[in-house]
Amino acid sequence: MELTKRQEQIVEIVKQEGPITGRQIAEKLSLIRATLRPDLTLLTMAGILEARPRVGYIFTGKTINSLVAQRINKIKVKDVCSFPFVLDEQVSIYDAIVSMFMEDVGTLFITKNGYLEGVVSRKDLLKATMGGMDVSKVPVMVVMTKMPNVVTINPDDPILLAAQKLVSREIDALPVVEVKTLANGEEKLRVTGRITKTTITKLFVELGETR
Amino acid sequence: MELTKRQEQIVEIVKQEGPITGRQIAEKLSLIRATLRPDLTLLTMAGILEARPRVGYIFTGKTINSLVAQRINKIKVKDVCSFPFVLDEQVSIYDAIVSMFMEDVGTLFITKNGYLEGVVSRKDLLKATMGGMDVSKVPVMVVMTKMPNVVTINPDDPILLAAQKLVSREIDALPVVEVKTLANGEEKLRVTGRITKTTITKLFVELGETR
Repeated sequence: MELTKRQEQIVEIVKQEGPITGRQIAEKLSLIRATLRPDLTLLTMAGILEARPRVGYIFTGKTINSLVAQRINKIKVKDVCSFPFVLDEQVSIYDAIVSMFMEDVGTLFITKNGYLEGVVSRKDLLKATMGGMDVSKVPVMVVMTKMPNVVTINPDDPILLAAQKLVSREIDALPVVEVKTLANGEEKLRVTGRITKTTITKLFVELGETR
Repeated sequence: MELTKRQEQIVEIVKQEGPITGRQIAEKLSLIRATLRPDLTLLTMAGILEARPRVGYIFTGKTINSLVAQRINKIKVKDVCSFPFVLDEQVSIYDAIVSMFMEDVGTLFITKNGYLEGVVSRKDLLKATMGGMDVSKVPVMVVMTKMPNVVTINPDDPILLAAQKLVSREIDALPVVEVKTLANGEEKLRVTGRITKTTITKLFVELGETR
């Protein structure tokens, strides 16, 4: 939705001088009240202005951009996450690298008895190959980031939170996890999906391509 | 902007039966025309319906989501691109890997005489270290993707196009380039910026965080 030049003038006036009545706004713009009615209706229904009886219009602080934000905030992790690829922590670094190429993923989720134990990135693997290790013998668990230092996300979290974590923690992927409580009371994480910067980029394209 | 239940009903009626007059819509909803006026004004001004004199309302095909798309389509590459990091093609693979860690980037742009010659990804470097090459002797140009196979973007292109290229070409980064014509008529590309999936993820967070 594009605001017209006049609607933007109205928002500016209310921002500066609100609460202000429709009549006062009309005077400032040298227009009659009736001319402004559709604009004021639109701005009020869009949530940009609020009409308070016997007080006048006030600016709610919302803008067109905040309407975009509203749309983004409705999307949940489970709506867009992709299938996770996991490897057991005993797998060799060499086999982990081969899997990374075969599956064409940038980050591997590492499990022990089926529960999340760590993550390993291309960067971790590149470091390992440079370090002169015997990559066909050393298990991947030696070079992974281990729990509880793994950043995770839940299926019901907003996708915005996932994107914020990717940016602020400077990582490429997040395992989507569900908590399972074992018989001994210990809590473990089962990996049910994957959110990456590719997921966010695809979602951005989808939002931008909508006609 | 959220549509109310009644506004959604109106859109549905116009979608099915448009062109249709305000009076006919009111009858269908068992309401009087005046009650619907603010809704019809809002839907028309938001561009979702179009009011044609002596014909009635028609559905434009636009939705709330297409308003989000409009906002996204206004952002240009030059508004959000970051500073590019470039390396000369004669630099060794080993030095390229060290630079990648030092600069903390996932893709390196490779130049010759200051003009774009190729790009090299973490994946390319990981392959090289696995391949048993002497990475301290072999120049990075041996393992890079070379021009004209490098996917690029221009500063004035919409950011949506950049995101589409990242997704469809399955790459992590795009060099932002400007064409320079040499004295001999040859066209070369100068790298002026960088767009990555991180750029898009940051932009997504920014759009989603707007209040």
